[in-house]
Amino acid sequence: MASQGIGIIGCGGVGQGVLEILQTRAASLEAAAGPFELVGVAVRDALKKRPPLAPGLLKTVDALLNDPKVAILVEVAGGVDAPFQWVTQALKAQKAVVTANKALLAERAEELHPYLSAPGARLYCEAAVAGGIPIIHALDRGLVANRILKIEGILNGTCNYILTLMERDRLSFQDALKQAQAKGFAEADPTLDISGGDAAHKLAVLAGLALGLPVPLSRVAVEGIERITAFDLQWADAHGFRIKMLAHGRFDEDAVELRVHPTLVSRTRLLSQVMDEFNAVVIEGDLTGPQLYEGRGAGRMSTASAVVSDIVQALRGEPMLRTHPKSGGTVRFKPMAEVVSRHYVHLEVIDRPGVVASVARALAAHGISIASMFQPEVDHGSQVPLVFTTHPAAESKIGAALKEMGQEPFLIGQPVHIRVES
Amino acid sequence: MASQGIGIIGCGGVGQGVLEILQTRAASLEAAAGPFELVGVAVRDALKKRPPLAPGLLKTVDALLNDPKVAILVEVAGGVDAPFQWVTQALKAQKAVVTANKALLAERAEELHPYLSAPGARLYCEAAVAGGIPIIHALDRGLVANRILKIEGILNGTCNYILTLMERDRLSFQDALKQAQAKGFAEADPTLDISGGDAAHKLAVLAGLALGLPVPLSRVAVEGIERITAFDLQWADAHGFRIKMLAHGRFDEDAVELRVHPTLVSRTRLLSQVMDEFNAVVIEGDLTGPQLYEGRGAGRMSTASAVVSDIVQALRGEPMLRTHPKSGGTVRFKPMAEVVSRHYVHLEVIDRPGVVASVARALAAHGISIASMFQPEVDHGSQVPLVFTTHPAAESKIGAALKEMGQEPFLIGQPVHIRVES
Repeated sequence: MASQGIGIIGCGGVGQGVLEILQTRAASLEAAAGPFELVGVAVRDALKKRPPLAPGLLKTVDALLNDPKVAILVEVAGGVDAPFQWVTQALKAQKAVVTANKALLAERAEELHPYLSAPGARLYCEAAVAGGIPIIHALDRGLVANRILKIEGILNGTCNYILTLMERDRLSFQDALKQAQAKGFAEADPTLDISGGDAAHKLAVLAGLALGLPVPLSRVAVEGIERITAFDLQWADAHGFRIKMLAHGRFDEDAVELRVHPTLVSRTRLLSQVMDEFNAVVIEGDLTGPQLYEGRGAGRMSTASAVVSDIVQALRGEPMLRTHPKSGGTVRFKPMAEVVSRHYVHLEVIDRPGVVASVARALAAHGISIASMFQPEVDHGSQVPLVFTTHPAAESKIGAALKEMGQEPFLIGQPVHIRVES
Repeated sequence: MASQGIGIIGCGGVGQGVLEILQTRAASLEAAAGPFELVGVAVRDALKKRPPLAPGLLKTVDALLNDPKVAILVEVAGGVDAPFQWVTQALKAQKAVVTANKALLAERAEELHPYLSAPGARLYCEAAVAGGIPIIHALDRGLVANRILKIEGILNGTCNYILTLMERDRLSFQDALKQAQAKGFAEADPTLDISGGDAAHKLAVLAGLALGLPVPLSRVAVEGIERITAFDLQWADAHGFRIKMLAHGRFDEDAVELRVHPTLVSRTRLLSQVMDEFNAVVIEGDLTGPQLYEGRGAGRMSTASAVVSDIVQALRGEPMLRTHPKSGGTVRFKPMAEVVSRHYVHLEVIDRPGVVASVARALAAHGISIASMFQPEVDHGSQVPLVFTTHPAAESKIGAALKEMGQEPFLIGQPVHIRVES
């Protein structure tokens, strides 16, 4: 068998991990995948500090893209615009592409669509979701006979770590975030993680594979964890729940529902027991029922392990099956306003006559049935939390009711609104 | 692409599920795997009641084995001796084999070895372990870059269901077994399940794939759950543990350790939270760290989903990578006597002077350090449980100490001995 050339763009933590695995495990990888050759590594900033590369290995991106010896292009550089150019150019040149780039796949899903539909196009993305957990292999191959009914998951380790600290150590969101940054589980700018944007990228990728269609990122409704308070975590704990930042995908015959937001999950569910920086994904196939996959969702060698599993598959010439979009398929994405769930709402109010009556009136006006209500006793006129949960109600209804409550002079700050998983 | 023929031996629940999937989802499966044709179904007992097959579909086993149109032989009949003949004959004839038969793979691992090492031989066994959970795909492909350090799992749904009932409803082993049988979670003859034999088959299959070597079933140490009492489950609950029937595989550089036995697992571990008839497998790769896979480990359609995923892979001509044994590899299997762990022992004794002293003396004589000891207060001379846990000690030591205690006249019945996972 002829040796196949591999070109890598990006030499950060993951890129270095991939290099290390390809170099130190060449014999066992070649036994599995046939002979390969590392043609070169391209970096955006040649002056950045990194371990020295072997002489001659450092190449420009263009050199790799134009080199016919490169049969497999590995993109682990990050960003969106430049990688889109690289990846589409490589696909046009019949190179197989391995990428860990969920932002690229999610933000450019529709633009990538025609390139992926082309005959012989091969793109692999195991490392884009949940690090070294082979969730894409499971979806693509292990569950190939199934119609996917549901995907649900803790897809962002930063959020899970922060919520774990808030629950376990009763920290505020800000203190938990600082600690996560100190431990390296949150970036200096944590916006993409805590806003839910990163989990939304990953859900869009998984949903695209489940449906065999490009899923525009705009179809994923997103809310972050910034407003959650230690009080909410304690309430959850006392009522048999945990608060988890969950990505939800439901694939019904008539509509697809995609959303990422903090969620009250029953402690009887295994998913609620996934703590610290760990990731977990639940996939429900119509034949298999729900399955949970859990492990470390990030980390240099774990993610590199996923990239190398894709390189092996690419070397073997075995395409991913679900990256080939169904032709002509369409699907209705359910707007968030139509989504029905139970709700938890935590208001901070001034305790004075008529508060509970106003809240109850606003809910009744929109046909929302109260499931429970709680307000501790405080001195009259003090600030006090008022918590209620509802029976299932549409987002449009609860949204309208909350908007009305927002006009009330007794309300302090913004309500904390968390969906309750039933 | 030419259509490939599929022959199925066995038409019980799983076989019927496979047929149903191949027939009702032919279009989407062919889109993934290329054209196929169902050549025939062979059954051992043609008179057995089952849904009617399409005319001409019922064939003899020999007709399928000798038909050159059959490119893929699916064995879902069960048993060991006859399937061994079928599978080896099919492999010799260059047919790909898909089997759900863990007993065959484990009991004949060494005899199958030369057939699987032959060039071009292809055997697939996703359905042999944990039903529809694609654990074999994960091990074989997703974790291809990893050295496997550890495999641990709840591989037998019957045992897990019985232990769940014993804990939750405080039932005796016998009552829980009866209820499991009534609900269809235990066979009329449950021996293979509750003795640990079935889990041992599955562990031997997983270990063989992890090592790339045939693992003789005799290398798996096995103990059943028959002696566990409701008292033990309550003790576990009060001390932060659950009792789980666990399969353990450790793959160290110098030795491999394989054992199946009831185990005290900390409730802080996700594995301890897997209840009812569910299965879970933890695989630790050296690059990924530990990952947990959980779901329904049995059931007709779930297992059929796994068989069909193998059929797709076989149709695509993509071999399993880890079924090809390493040539010349050997490994030292650690005898159970050398295995070191913490121990829980529950004796039923007559409460009289000197009992605790005798027990403590027997442990001290073998150099075993007591971690905790508990005996409730009862009327003098009554039967009472005496429970102790130890610091880590070798099986040879605890075995010898228990043997000495067994001579004591104050001991009633046999001790309950459970390893404690640290």
